[in-house]
Amino acid sequence: MGEDTARLTVAFQGELGAFSCEAALDILGTEIELLPRPTFAAVFEAVIQGEADRGIIPIENSLAGSVHENYDRLQSSALQIVGETQLRIRHCLIGMPGTKLNDIRRVFSHPVALAQCRRFFAEHAGIEAVAAYDTAGAVIDIMKARCADHAAIASRLAAELHGGQVLMEELEDEPQNFTRFLVLSRLAGALGNATKTSLVFTLENVPGSLYRAIGAFALRGVDLAKIESRPIRGRPWEYAFYLDALGDPRGEVGEAIKDLRRSAHELRVLGSYPDGLKKERPES
Amino acid sequence: MGEDTARLTVAFQGELGAFSCEAALDILGTEIELLPRPTFAAVFEAVIQGEADRGIIPIENSLAGSVHENYDRLQSSALQIVGETQLRIRHCLIGMPGTKLNDIRRVFSHPVALAQCRRFFAEHAGIEAVAAYDTAGAVIDIMKARCADHAAIASRLAAELHGGQVLMEELEDEPQNFTRFLVLSRLAGALGNATKTSLVFTLENVPGSLYRAIGAFALRGVDLAKIESRPIRGRPWEYAFYLDALGDPRGEVGEAIKDLRRSAHELRVLGSYPDGLKKERPES
Repeated sequence: MGEDTARLTVAFQGELGAFSCEAALDILGTEIELLPRPTFAAVFEAVIQGEADRGIIPIENSLAGSVHENYDRLQSSALQIVGETQLRIRHCLIGMPGTKLNDIRRVFSHPVALAQCRRFFAEHAGIEAVAAYDTAGAVIDIMKARCADHAAIASRLAAELHGGQVLMEELEDEPQNFTRFLVLSRLAGALGNATKTSLVFTLENVPGSLYRAIGAFALRGVDLAKIESRPIRGRPWEYAFYLDALGDPRGEVGEAIKDLRRSAHELRVLGSYPDGLKKERPES
Repeated sequence: MGEDTARLTVAFQGELGAFSCEAALDILGTEIELLPRPTFAAVFEAVIQGEADRGIIPIENSLAGSVHENYDRLQSSALQIVGETQLRIRHCLIGMPGTKLNDIRRVFSHPVALAQCRRFFAEHAGIEAVAAYDTAGAVIDIMKARCADHAAIASRLAAELHGGQVLMEELEDEPQNFTRFLVLSRLAGALGNATKTSLVFTLENVPGSLYRAIGAFALRGVDLAKIESRPIRGRPWEYAFYLDALGDPRGEVGEAIKDLRRSAHELRVLGSYPDGLKKERPES
């Protein structure tokens, strides 16, 4: 990747121990310098400005769907996707060391995490759910406030990093809860080991235009891992398409993109990178 | 439509004067009985249980994109789409009668509405934005509390219905701000004047399956107004596709659906109805 990976600085949204932080360690190794940032916009900025070598952003959750604001930022920035990983989201109940589950009266976490643990709150009617700005941030706040009847919902990593105690595990209602994260960089990654290419394009609004666009891939036997439409700002009921194509970008995938470029209005290749989704299927 | 339209009971989310309420009056006329409901889920329930003859739900905003939770509910319910309309979202600043803009210190509205009026808050640094559960509900609260330094962001209709005074108009940052609303019913609408058909389907996860699915429409010259993918709960990185096809459901569109039914895993026609989007294009 050019830089010495032992010293890579990696920006992510949230506090140390956030799920994005866990994803960074998972894909880039533990020898990185972690750069917590308050917002997704600040993660993009840190990479664009050169403060960070890489940025980690969530792009899709298997329950909630795409993180549209990050798709929008990908389209308008010049950053390149150079990697991806998926993380199973396992929510832990985390309190001060010595706390017992029976003592807990208020549980703090990000609203999305709270919404993914509805069963826990239904089964513990005496416990109130309280919205916080960040999962790992809620752990930090509890450790600072030293309240024995408060707990947070966050990752096991957040408990370990901030000295919290895991009171309960797997609070999530739905175990098939995965988030896909992208690794962003100012420069494109090596094509040699790339097996997935992401692009965004717009089409002329005429019958069959999407069919012909997808045909550029289908007629070459290229599999699409994903296709998604997004409204275009200021052009009601017109859409941009996001597409992930599987295969060697120097082969059929590259040919297909060359083809598509002839009919697409605008087309931006967001990056080619190794496919990081080892599909974990349910048993059914 | 079967029932006497003069007595149609129409459920919508929010208080009287909410944008959904405005959409109901726009498409079903003013001689309807309005049934405000606190949540989208309650709107679906009201129609399913027969409390309401019709339900109005927002399905897509030209800036924010699809209202995914309503797409998910459409897929799992047996309700039919029988109509649609679009509304330009015009945000008004609404206070007590006699209030002046200079007096206002706090402005209450739904977080989405507040986010669409960022310029107003940037230009009025002394005014604090405060989240409320509903746009029209914020107007009701202000009229009850009789606070001269409070205002709400909501529709002109909400001001008129609840006796508020419009202090300022067109607060929205982006004038190309349209929301598309669907009309739901327990029974399918008449096919005679239907020009749009919405469906949802899943496909076998093999190369070219989406290309062949779209081909059923493209090869018949059927225009697609929209196609969108949604993750399937419990099946990470697999998707359901939502599609709006334009044309006579008794003609080519019906033939294409019959074709698609042979290759799709699951397919549900969500309804055929008159196309309600008279496209208002930007001048550029």
